[in-house]
Amino acid sequence: MSHPVDSVVSDVRTYIEQHRAAFLDDLAAWLRIPSVSAQPDHAPDVLRSADWLAAKLTETGFPTVEIWPTQGAPAVFAEWPSGDPEAPTVLVYGHHDVQPAAREDGWDSDPFEPVVRENRLYARGAADDKGQVFFHTLGVRAHLAATGRTAPAVNLKLLIEGEEESGSPHFQTLVEERVDRLAADAVIVSDTGMWSEDTPTVCTGMRGLTECEIRLYGPDQDIHSGSFGGAVPNPATAAARLVAALHDEHGRVAIPGFYDGIVELTDRERQLFADLPFDEQSWLRTAKSHATHGEAGYTTLERVWARPTAEVNGIGGGYQGPGSKTIIPAGAMMKLSFRMVAGQEPEHIEKVVRAWAAEQAPAGIRCEVVFGPATRPCLTPLDHPALRSVARAMGRAFDRPVGYTREGGSGPAAVLQEVLGAAVLFLGISVPSDGWHAPNEKVELDLLLKGVETTAYLWGDLAENWRHAP
Amino acid sequence: MSHPVDSVVSDVRTYIEQHRAAFLDDLAAWLRIPSVSAQPDHAPDVLRSADWLAAKLTETGFPTVEIWPTQGAPAVFAEWPSGDPEAPTVLVYGHHDVQPAAREDGWDSDPFEPVVRENRLYARGAADDKGQVFFHTLGVRAHLAATGRTAPAVNLKLLIEGEEESGSPHFQTLVEERVDRLAADAVIVSDTGMWSEDTPTVCTGMRGLTECEIRLYGPDQDIHSGSFGGAVPNPATAAARLVAALHDEHGRVAIPGFYDGIVELTDRERQLFADLPFDEQSWLRTAKSHATHGEAGYTTLERVWARPTAEVNGIGGGYQGPGSKTIIPAGAMMKLSFRMVAGQEPEHIEKVVRAWAAEQAPAGIRCEVVFGPATRPCLTPLDHPALRSVARAMGRAFDRPVGYTREGGSGPAAVLQEVLGAAVLFLGISVPSDGWHAPNEKVELDLLLKGVETTAYLWGDLAENWRHAP
Repeated sequence: MSHPVDSVVSDVRTYIEQHRAAFLDDLAAWLRIPSVSAQPDHAPDVLRSADWLAAKLTETGFPTVEIWPTQGAPAVFAEWPSGDPEAPTVLVYGHHDVQPAAREDGWDSDPFEPVVRENRLYARGAADDKGQVFFHTLGVRAHLAATGRTAPAVNLKLLIEGEEESGSPHFQTLVEERVDRLAADAVIVSDTGMWSEDTPTVCTGMRGLTECEIRLYGPDQDIHSGSFGGAVPNPATAAARLVAALHDEHGRVAIPGFYDGIVELTDRERQLFADLPFDEQSWLRTAKSHATHGEAGYTTLERVWARPTAEVNGIGGGYQGPGSKTIIPAGAMMKLSFRMVAGQEPEHIEKVVRAWAAEQAPAGIRCEVVFGPATRPCLTPLDHPALRSVARAMGRAFDRPVGYTREGGSGPAAVLQEVLGAAVLFLGISVPSDGWHAPNEKVELDLLLKGVETTAYLWGDLAENWRHAP
Repeated sequence: MSHPVDSVVSDVRTYIEQHRAAFLDDLAAWLRIPSVSAQPDHAPDVLRSADWLAAKLTETGFPTVEIWPTQGAPAVFAEWPSGDPEAPTVLVYGHHDVQPAAREDGWDSDPFEPVVRENRLYARGAADDKGQVFFHTLGVRAHLAATGRTAPAVNLKLLIEGEEESGSPHFQTLVEERVDRLAADAVIVSDTGMWSEDTPTVCTGMRGLTECEIRLYGPDQDIHSGSFGGAVPNPATAAARLVAALHDEHGRVAIPGFYDGIVELTDRERQLFADLPFDEQSWLRTAKSHATHGEAGYTTLERVWARPTAEVNGIGGGYQGPGSKTIIPAGAMMKLSFRMVAGQEPEHIEKVVRAWAAEQAPAGIRCEVVFGPATRPCLTPLDHPALRSVARAMGRAFDRPVGYTREGGSGPAAVLQEVLGAAVLFLGISVPSDGWHAPNEKVELDLLLKGVETTAYLWGDLAENWRHAP
């Protein structure tokens, strides 16, 4: 006699085992479609990828499946109502386009001919993001099979975009235009990863991002450094001084007002981060870097996950070719990016950066600041009921308690949080060795099936513990 | 009855007036040879220019005229002994190659078809440097005519190189190989200018120049600024901080040891500089700059002529293209140049720069410093007898006392000072409006003939006031 919960686990695992082969065959068929959104000659493949996914979602049982065109590549939308008026609505986000890949980049096999070696499935998109989108198809079927339901316990929506690898240029417009159809209580992003094979984790937030280019103009043209050097301001020096002034001696961003209103780490979060099996040498290898460095008083994980940054992504001015050129350059520029944490608004960052830059430029140097589009940060509190459901479902699938991480990068999920006003949660089973954007991208088959299993538990847990407030 | 001195002046002026037309015709013939050393297809023209000058110097009366080949373009050497064992030996330096020029660059007439408009001779090389080399031919003839001598009062040597506009790549080797033939008590450089049409001046020195490239290496490749930003050192930040640390808040170079041993300006020199009719607005227009800026406690002229500098000629790292790229760059570089004043040695500057750079680079950033060839500074004291002769001869030609300047740039003359151990003096009649290296280069005919006249007085004055110590 098994405990009722154990019976669900057993039923889910049996169902997955029975359907595993067909599931992997289907995923392989999808991975064969080279849906590279960044390469115009693959545009028909991106369309084919959307069609393929739409057909598969219909076959899975979603009563509504639509292909949503954009100015670029299409997204796929699917919806499966639970029938329960109090059930929460969950929107799963992922993408069906992939990064470019070519055998000669260093792949051991054709990137668009999936192959399994040592229980890993190798193909472009295996982890980023087709594999992680696809586990939702078998997951919802396992959920129904194990609970005897005919519809999911939550109102389940999927939005699988086709331009994520091209910077999601039309995503915000799409979401704004379809805001009524996309309405949700929570967004589940399945386009991330977890700590490692041995340490399943839930990500609780992403940093935001705002970027600018600062251009400094000095002499009207390059001038002779012998004739004039030492007596006029040099815009490359001014640019360098601006970059040098970004941080104080404690590694803190020195722009006045930069930290205004940020949500500080709680002691509990710091403890959870500290509980992770972090190894600095191994982290440095991943970072291909030779030392850690950053804001005093914070660990490396806190610095990349939970602290805002000011980073120079590029700097240039004057002569950079071989040999020398004795000039004072006419101008210099820098590209700065600011990672934001919860509580920071891009509009505020833009305001304080502009004020700071204007203050710094010396007489005789004109300063121009151009900001690009921004991505807001997102953060779900540890005690959010939906986050607790994700952690529980994942812990059940992995047979162990899960840890907590955040993501230092920034993504289009923030658009969903902002436009839909929904909590954003992350459910990803990819691991750092999966090789996103690199040759020999792969997904660990065991983890992929744990993803299936997690979603098989998640919808029931969510519906039980979090009711939609109509 | 005229004073004997006035009689020499009168004789010189009469002689010049009589030979003016032929002199200008000859110069025009030379200017028609497009001796552009930087353009390989003009190599035969550079050879032709050397031949033409050699023939003209023979015709002028130099008993020894030789064409000295180099690995590149040839130099012309001429020698005319005075016959007096105690006469000082003077070596005139100039160059017979010119900058590239094409009508379509904005010339109002063919750059290699000399034309006189409003008493100015327009042609590439008119001022830089054929005109200023050529005034020595008529000058020495006028000297002989007015004094009744058959040989000049000094041992006169000319070295007219053919690669100055290409950076004089073989000049040092040439001088070292021919050091015995070139031996001289003083070098007269006729490849510079004076303050203005109304203010004849003598230049007393040039700054030296040493240059380096500093390369900073961070991560092994560009890394993601989201995943790692805030927790590893950024080499573009390190480069910027290095450049920012070049100067203190008073505009002084902050590299420890940089000012060691420099020859400070005397009160008399500062007064002489202050006596020049300097107008900041007009200087800024020439500098195409919008403010003055530099070392506290010094005027603009002092800063460019007599103070050493550290200038960034170029800086680069990371992404500089359109849009943005969220990376921490793998590396960054800067090109620095240091103008040195008398008392500074390039070897010492290299040593202190290397020590300073090594000190600044943060952990995890590797720093590489590469120095190129250097040019030493040169300075002739105001009370040097040869300098006094130059100033007197010029004052006589211009009928007014001359002012004193220095040159902020650096040139091959320093090689002559160093290898020959000779005092270096500057005799130039070019003015800032002559358009060196620019379209519509010209020389003012009145000033060109004042150059002839100055040299007609100079050799006698030198021989009278400065004896060679055998």
